[in-house]
Amino acid sequence: MSLLDVQSFAAGHWIAPDADARMIAHAVTGAPLARAGNGALDVQAMLDYARDTGGPALRALTFHDRARMLKALALHLGAHKQALYDLSFATGATQADHLIDIDGGIGTVFVFASKGRREMPDAHVYLDGEVEQLSRTGTFLGQHIATPLQGVAVHINAFNFPVWGMLEKLAPTLLAGMPAIVKPATASCYVTEKAVRIILDSGILPAGALQLVTGGLGDMLDRLTCQDVVSFTGSADTALRLRAAPHLLRNAVRFVAEQDSLNASILGPDAVPGTPEFDLFIREVAREMTAKAGQKCTAIRRILAPQAQVDGVIAALGARLAKTVIGDPRDTATTMGALVSNGQKRDVLAKARVIATEAERVFGDPEAFTVHGADARTGAFLPPMLLHCADPDAAQRLHDTEAFGPVSTVMGYRDLDHAVALVNRGAGSLVASLITHDPEVARQVALGAGAFHGRLYINDRDSMGEATGHGAPLPHMIHGGPGRAGGGEELGGVRGVMHYMQRTAIQGSPDMLTAIGGKWVPGATETPAPAHPFTRGFDALRIGETLHTPARQVTLADIEHFAAFTGDTFYAHMDDAAAARNPFFPGRVAHGYLLLSFAAGLFVDPDEGPVLANTGLDSLRFLKPVAPGDSLKARLTVKHKTPRNDAYGEVRWHVSLTNQEDDLVAEYELLTMIAYAA
Amino acid sequence: MSLLDVQSFAAGHWIAPDADARMIAHAVTGAPLARAGNGALDVQAMLDYARDTGGPALRALTFHDRARMLKALALHLGAHKQALYDLSFATGATQADHLIDIDGGIGTVFVFASKGRREMPDAHVYLDGEVEQLSRTGTFLGQHIATPLQGVAVHINAFNFPVWGMLEKLAPTLLAGMPAIVKPATASCYVTEKAVRIILDSGILPAGALQLVTGGLGDMLDRLTCQDVVSFTGSADTALRLRAAPHLLRNAVRFVAEQDSLNASILGPDAVPGTPEFDLFIREVAREMTAKAGQKCTAIRRILAPQAQVDGVIAALGARLAKTVIGDPRDTATTMGALVSNGQKRDVLAKARVIATEAERVFGDPEAFTVHGADARTGAFLPPMLLHCADPDAAQRLHDTEAFGPVSTVMGYRDLDHAVALVNRGAGSLVASLITHDPEVARQVALGAGAFHGRLYINDRDSMGEATGHGAPLPHMIHGGPGRAGGGEELGGVRGVMHYMQRTAIQGSPDMLTAIGGKWVPGATETPAPAHPFTRGFDALRIGETLHTPARQVTLADIEHFAAFTGDTFYAHMDDAAAARNPFFPGRVAHGYLLLSFAAGLFVDPDEGPVLANTGLDSLRFLKPVAPGDSLKARLTVKHKTPRNDAYGEVRWHVSLTNQEDDLVAEYELLTMIAYAA
Repeated sequence: MSLLDVQSFAAGHWIAPDADARMIAHAVTGAPLARAGNGALDVQAMLDYARDTGGPALRALTFHDRARMLKALALHLGAHKQALYDLSFATGATQADHLIDIDGGIGTVFVFASKGRREMPDAHVYLDGEVEQLSRTGTFLGQHIATPLQGVAVHINAFNFPVWGMLEKLAPTLLAGMPAIVKPATASCYVTEKAVRIILDSGILPAGALQLVTGGLGDMLDRLTCQDVVSFTGSADTALRLRAAPHLLRNAVRFVAEQDSLNASILGPDAVPGTPEFDLFIREVAREMTAKAGQKCTAIRRILAPQAQVDGVIAALGARLAKTVIGDPRDTATTMGALVSNGQKRDVLAKARVIATEAERVFGDPEAFTVHGADARTGAFLPPMLLHCADPDAAQRLHDTEAFGPVSTVMGYRDLDHAVALVNRGAGSLVASLITHDPEVARQVALGAGAFHGRLYINDRDSMGEATGHGAPLPHMIHGGPGRAGGGEELGGVRGVMHYMQRTAIQGSPDMLTAIGGKWVPGATETPAPAHPFTRGFDALRIGETLHTPARQVTLADIEHFAAFTGDTFYAHMDDAAAARNPFFPGRVAHGYLLLSFAAGLFVDPDEGPVLANTGLDSLRFLKPVAPGDSLKARLTVKHKTPRNDAYGEVRWHVSLTNQEDDLVAEYELLTMIAYAA
Repeated sequence: MSLLDVQSFAAGHWIAPDADARMIAHAVTGAPLARAGNGALDVQAMLDYARDTGGPALRALTFHDRARMLKALALHLGAHKQALYDLSFATGATQADHLIDIDGGIGTVFVFASKGRREMPDAHVYLDGEVEQLSRTGTFLGQHIATPLQGVAVHINAFNFPVWGMLEKLAPTLLAGMPAIVKPATASCYVTEKAVRIILDSGILPAGALQLVTGGLGDMLDRLTCQDVVSFTGSADTALRLRAAPHLLRNAVRFVAEQDSLNASILGPDAVPGTPEFDLFIREVAREMTAKAGQKCTAIRRILAPQAQVDGVIAALGARLAKTVIGDPRDTATTMGALVSNGQKRDVLAKARVIATEAERVFGDPEAFTVHGADARTGAFLPPMLLHCADPDAAQRLHDTEAFGPVSTVMGYRDLDHAVALVNRGAGSLVASLITHDPEVARQVALGAGAFHGRLYINDRDSMGEATGHGAPLPHMIHGGPGRAGGGEELGGVRGVMHYMQRTAIQGSPDMLTAIGGKWVPGATETPAPAHPFTRGFDALRIGETLHTPARQVTLADIEHFAAFTGDTFYAHMDDAAAARNPFFPGRVAHGYLLLSFAAGLFVDPDEGPVLANTGLDSLRFLKPVAPGDSLKARLTVKHKTPRNDAYGEVRWHVSLTNQEDDLVAEYELLTMIAYAA
């Protein structure tokens, strides 16, 4: 087989490996497979290409434009994923591993596409939080916004997930409006290169949005500014080296690190043998040990069980691990493939020996195990190895040494406080899991251990049918953790997008906030509607367009009629003396829903027109009671517009209801779907 | 006058200065004033005291408990602020400066007290964002939570605001539930020491919540873990030294830096002489240059005006600055006091000379200015100094050299893009301001410059009556900025509290999320109500307590009656053919407000009882139309409880409306105020 030449994509051109290239071996055979690396990349040209071409093109798009682009990208990758599967077997990964890496990566892009459409505006500015009242009469207000950083995101990725590892960073970066330069780890960079080719060949991304470095980054990091981001996934040692780079520190360049950590799983005190939770625990732990041959930054390294259950856990885990079929990852019977390289295998064995100074091996012998369909002497194979530590309090290396392979250690705990103390000994991890059916146990672990972990995964008989697994970072939830886990955060929906944007506090008048945020702020200029706004289509309606209705009196007869009709005879509406005893009311008052209903009667235009439906209502507050004889009028203002599909969009109206003295009696936001054209 | 001995407060004891103490001079007279410093502090004992005594005591409180504690603290400080004023004159600060530092600091504590009560739960876990749907049928969900870090916050503060600088960090730290060790800058540490004494003497804080180091920190930073935070305010050089500490980097210890930066103010193209905005600009700039003698990290260092207005700005600013009365800060006629020390004065002059290599001085001569009531030779006085740079594109030092005193440089811009480019040359700043009456100018500047600035302050004729000033960080808004400004964030309401908590992604069943978050999650166990829930007081109601109502049919007569009564004759309710043409409806459907009203009629208990009022409604969504003949029933579940005052609390109910086929037709959250006892 001829060697694969893994190229870089720099400033618009594919660059072949040169004399600086490194050799990459096949994980299963150990034979030379590919070469990658270019000593002569012009990193400044790459940065310029991203900053001057990619950035402006992406920033010209709205969040919805970028979300649609991501959806197209995910569909395109899905249509071409077989090519990625085919190539990925050489990394030692099985088809089940591909589902995590390749399908999981594509799924992540889909989720960001969806969140971009549903949770972000069709605009260039994202609003973070609500308007802040900074003044008595409301002429000076605050609003936090986020806008894309104007530099480039440098993504330095780990070898274990050559596709997911790229896409989970790329999706939020592109959605934010930033270009990326991707630097995959060498051992599996040929898979990433293929994914980048598929993406670039699609023509879906603007020029400059994505570049690839399959060799070294040269002095690229020394050329970054406060508008750039470095996002790293990998070992603690490499993270420390990068994080300490003087140029990055001096310029406060954003540095996000996600490091593999000493993740743990706790068997709850209630989850004794015979419960569904005990069996679930064994399944989860065994799966985490063997998936991707244990090469997952979220894999379970420490297994905590009540002291009384330790022997049972070891026995059950051993029995389950004994069913592992190790071998050629292309064979569908194989349940665990190879590690990515023999170098990695040697590293895992060395770390396992360190751990073994504090623990005893109770399952799996690296000198004696069966490999199916491949040669154990040349391929990077290892068996799952389970250890048992009898004194986890005295142990230290156990809590700080990660063997990045199918290696895990069982330890016993005395009570829940002890379990929390042990799980926190990892000094910061990406994820801890807890298998329990007792919500109070979950609450105690969350309070005691939450501060040490980026994610707490809780599973039991109720959720196990749909639970996504201890080790699976989901695009909806943050991925990262304090301390040993790197102190960073990724993913988590819009939270992950914010890493590639700058949050800025805006202060100004309502008109200024409205112009910047694209959302009408109370107090801003009202534009008179040229016709009843319900006769105007989505496209015609302007932010700030306002309808003032005439007033209607609310009579005691109205209140009594409404009560009889709806059955809502609550004392505040029916009993003057009881109502007056209530701290909120002067006596009998109108129903809140009567006010809403009358308001709709005042502002609705009854004829068939572009308004299709009232789909909801947000943030309704009743501010002042309406007594019999008071009158009611409404002000309806276009607050925000969001396209929803080809036919219509959502218009959010700000509604104020006032009485005969112009006092505010209620305020809310009304949601309607409105056809684009009238 | 005898020397002040400035003490430290370590592990429960006040420690006097020792042989390592440094001398502090009076800013106005230059005479020896105080000595501070202890070489022999037991920093490990301090950390232990915070972690083992202060932290657990604070974490045992709820967010509301801590908010009440902050309010008590603010009231107590307010009652003792005269002692702080009296001492602060020696730092060179005027009474107007005290209002910023001392009253501003106390006001910040009040705002966090208020936000803690209004925006955080009366519980130990803060919920960040909404429930995430991670499964098809909803048995496995996600929720981000935040819990207090279990270590200590080390606050390293700048000299310019000895009270505000401590309180703006302390308030969010304590609200989060973390203890703090405060290290003020030496030059003004005697004021901070006094504030700490006032706080500790009040007995309001639990033991271990607050300690003070008025000398060096020893090797304290080398003893921090992933549960600790270092929050620094000061110069870029010191920030770099701290940030690069290997121990902090290796353990990914949270490090927040807020550095003084090259803040700028832009005079909008529309704000020509004769407009209210031109005069406002001159006032704002002059105030920022002279307040606190220019020793503000947010002060305006660069003044950007349209090229045509540069001469006018220089003339108007010069005329206004000429009215500055420099002198003894105790004199009420004084408008600008002294810098904090002669060392600081020398530093400012040296930096001003650097800037003068690229700009010409047009106002203020440090060799010739009048000082009233003090000796210019011994006190740290300087005049306001205005420079003009004719070629700001060619300049470099101007954009990266901060003279931390009353020094600022005017430069002209050609058009708005040029102004944005120049303001961004600061490579990251805390705040930029823009004086314009044109919302489109504001929008363009926000899009172009937002990513380089932590705050954008926009002011005009509409907001100037209530605007809080370019230089004033408000507790509601984030304070910090990218790059040169340190890359950190503080304040911003709950955002600032999050710096002292860990965000954790929780995954689990609805019951697990409910137990951890204290907020009922749809799908979680429903507790049958022992009596109608409206007859039960706030204290008796349990999270998850649920009422199921009987069903009621919705007839065509009901719809027509409701339409006639309310006036809401929208075609979807009245015209079968038009409704059927609508993509949402099968034909005529019931009004959404009719459904809400009927639902209330179904679930309300009419008799006088603990339910006082329906105060609002959130997140109402109409999910399926209700046609004539369909029936409607409601499920009402206690979702969340928040005490509001001595008499009653807010109960948030989750309401689901379903039809005869148990399909969800609407869902919302209902807000009620309920008396504590039934």
